[in-house]
Amino acid sequence: MTNPSLLILPGDGIGPEVMAEVRKIIDWYGAKRDLTFDVSEGLVGGCSYDAHGTPLTDETMEQAQSVDAVLLGAVGGPAYDNLDFSVKPERGLLRLRKEMDLYANLRPAQCFDALADFSSLKKDVVAGLDIMIVRELTSGIYFGEPRGIFEEGNERVGINTQRYTESEIERVARSAFELARRRGNKVCSMEKANVMESGILWREVVQKVHDEEYADVELSHMYADAGAMQLCRWPKQFDVIVTDNLFGDLLSDAAAMLTGSLGMLPSASLGAPMSNGRPKALYEPVHGSAPDIAGQGKANPIACVLSFAMALRYSFDQGAEADRLEKAVEKVLADGVRTADLLGEEGVQPVSTSEMGDAIVAAL
Amino acid sequence: MTNPSLLILPGDGIGPEVMAEVRKIIDWYGAKRDLTFDVSEGLVGGCSYDAHGTPLTDETMEQAQSVDAVLLGAVGGPAYDNLDFSVKPERGLLRLRKEMDLYANLRPAQCFDALADFSSLKKDVVAGLDIMIVRELTSGIYFGEPRGIFEEGNERVGINTQRYTESEIERVARSAFELARRRGNKVCSMEKANVMESGILWREVVQKVHDEEYADVELSHMYADAGAMQLCRWPKQFDVIVTDNLFGDLLSDAAAMLTGSLGMLPSASLGAPMSNGRPKALYEPVHGSAPDIAGQGKANPIACVLSFAMALRYSFDQGAEADRLEKAVEKVLADGVRTADLLGEEGVQPVSTSEMGDAIVAAL
Ligand SMILES: CC(C)[C@H](C(=O)O)[C@@H](O)C(=O)O
Ligand SMILES: CC(C)[C@H](C(=O)O)[C@@H](O)C(=O)O
Repeated sequence: MTNPSLLILPGDGIGPEVMAEVRKIIDWYGAKRDLTFDVSEGLVGGCSYDAHGTPLTDETMEQAQSVDAVLLGAVGGPAYDNLDFSVKPERGLLRLRKEMDLYANLRPAQCFDALADFSSLKKDVVAGLDIMIVRELTSGIYFGEPRGIFEEGNERVGINTQRYTESEIERVARSAFELARRRGNKVCSMEKANVMESGILWREVVQKVHDEEYADVELSHMYADAGAMQLCRWPKQFDVIVTDNLFGDLLSDAAAMLTGSLGMLPSASLGAPMSNGRPKALYEPVHGSAPDIAGQGKANPIACVLSFAMALRYSFDQGAEADRLEKAVEKVLADGVRTADLLGEEGVQPVSTSEMGDAIVAAL
Repeated sequence: MTNPSLLILPGDGIGPEVMAEVRKIIDWYGAKRDLTFDVSEGLVGGCSYDAHGTPLTDETMEQAQSVDAVLLGAVGGPAYDNLDFSVKPERGLLRLRKEMDLYANLRPAQCFDALADFSSLKKDVVAGLDIMIVRELTSGIYFGEPRGIFEEGNERVGINTQRYTESEIERVARSAFELARRRGNKVCSMEKANVMESGILWREVVQKVHDEEYADVELSHMYADAGAMQLCRWPKQFDVIVTDNLFGDLLSDAAAMLTGSLGMLPSASLGAPMSNGRPKALYEPVHGSAPDIAGQGKANPIACVLSFAMALRYSFDQGAEADRLEKAVEKVLADGVRTADLLGEEGVQPVSTSEMGDAIVAAL
């Protein structure tokens, strides 16, 4: 039997630092649990542009298509701010999402007990919060044509196109309903059907998928602006939220921040099943490349570690090992080990990125 | 000299109830301050559809174009949910915004001292918060063509178009910089220039207007997803935020909710100056038609009252009277008068919509 394969793309900023800690965990699994991964590594984002003039080479793209899972750190940074749009670091990530057809982006917004004091929200509003945002990731205004900056009369006009087909909406709706069945059995779908026709189609298709295939799941619809409000008011009303690419971008960031656990949150981007029955998949932390602290050993590796735990669960059929890893993270937090981003309490000394990684390995 | 003219469009749900309280205030100004308005009244939204089969008649549209200011209550409600898109209540509001060319939507997110405990955010995060979101209101994905639901192959596709010209961005940027000069002198512009070309043009034009005309104002740029995060984390970092129609819709709702003052917040939608030098203007509460409490005398009229105060300031050159009205609202709140939506404290009995209106008139 061949080992499961994993492509690691550390990317830019704090990406390589947090990924180094995941490496330690992967090594631990090989040494202690006889669970060995064929790990390859590649470039994505600014570092790929620096080396190859493109944020993602065709070779790396092909490699990503051939492995069981991809684990990505983060892309981008101020050094690349003035690059042409077509070679921006983000284009590498977007190409991966699009060509691997990773249509369902799972973004938990979870409040860790040890960190409930850490949110800008009142403790009773966030303690125990555990919602899952399912964001459509391969279509919508991120990819629709026509797009660009054009001359029109004597001025320029910037154009992007929001575009959703029925089948694109159907498949992500199914992902959301499937997840809900394994959680609180509730889905709230968010769009702007009151002002956008693409939102009308969205609402109609989600409702149809529900009625025909998932009538046992509780479904509600909400305008995305009201959704943003409700997330800020009483997020515990939600279980699974399903929404489009652009709304999902804003709503999941807001929700993640509300939990106070931003540096802690993983994500999974899943596509259609491969021949082995597992979905194509890319895992990455919700946080970005954090250029302000890059290279200083201050970054919190937990989001990346938990992204690897999601890979264990969804791509490697190792649910028990995923549980083990998540428990190790919980234990370390309960023991009061804190990277600098998690410091609320007086008198607690922060540990470095690498010390946090070591503590998690020790707790495994 | 002719009296200033005001068109009142109470609309649906709690709209008529809150507007009745503004009527009392208008009467008070006529009787006590010799400030008489030529008030006319019309229909917009669902009630207009019920009466005329359209959410806004041409006659009402013409009237709105001819008055000094329009004051609107709210539109929409579940009774109209299944109407065809083209006659939905919201289309009436959108037609007013578009045909009056009200490109700058001013949405304060302000935390009233008496209500700081009321937010889902911790008190130190929101106390004293006072930011102004300037949302572009006549373009972007709300109005871009092509739009609709089309057949494509053997399925349907929903399409909307985001579209911004340089001049559309320039004029709303100027509104934001002008406002900033009279406030904290800081503007943060939000878009998704990392994934949308329309965002690239947005960022470039805002920067150009800044450099050429408002170099004295501090300008920063932020991706809209990071903006949503930062609003939830530490909103006091912002003074004026300028953003497009769709991002502004979500971000302003989230910001308003964060303040805990949602039922309290007014808005002004301003266009180009008319022959009298004042901008075309429509004023409306940020809250919606609240069908769940409509007709029960529970609604909080303060957002609509404060919208009228904004009209006094921006359309009627009555800054001192606007101050007076705002002070009256503050006094009533400080006295502990509370509609049901503002009840946090134990043992406080809520007052009705009409009692709140009377209390404000008494405090004038
Ligand atoms: C980096 C950027 C392209 C990306 C997005 O907009 O999708 C990020 O914000 C995210 O949410 O993963
Ligand atoms: C009612 C609706 C059309 C409107 C909008 O989307 O602009 C509302 O949400 C608002 O923010 O004023």
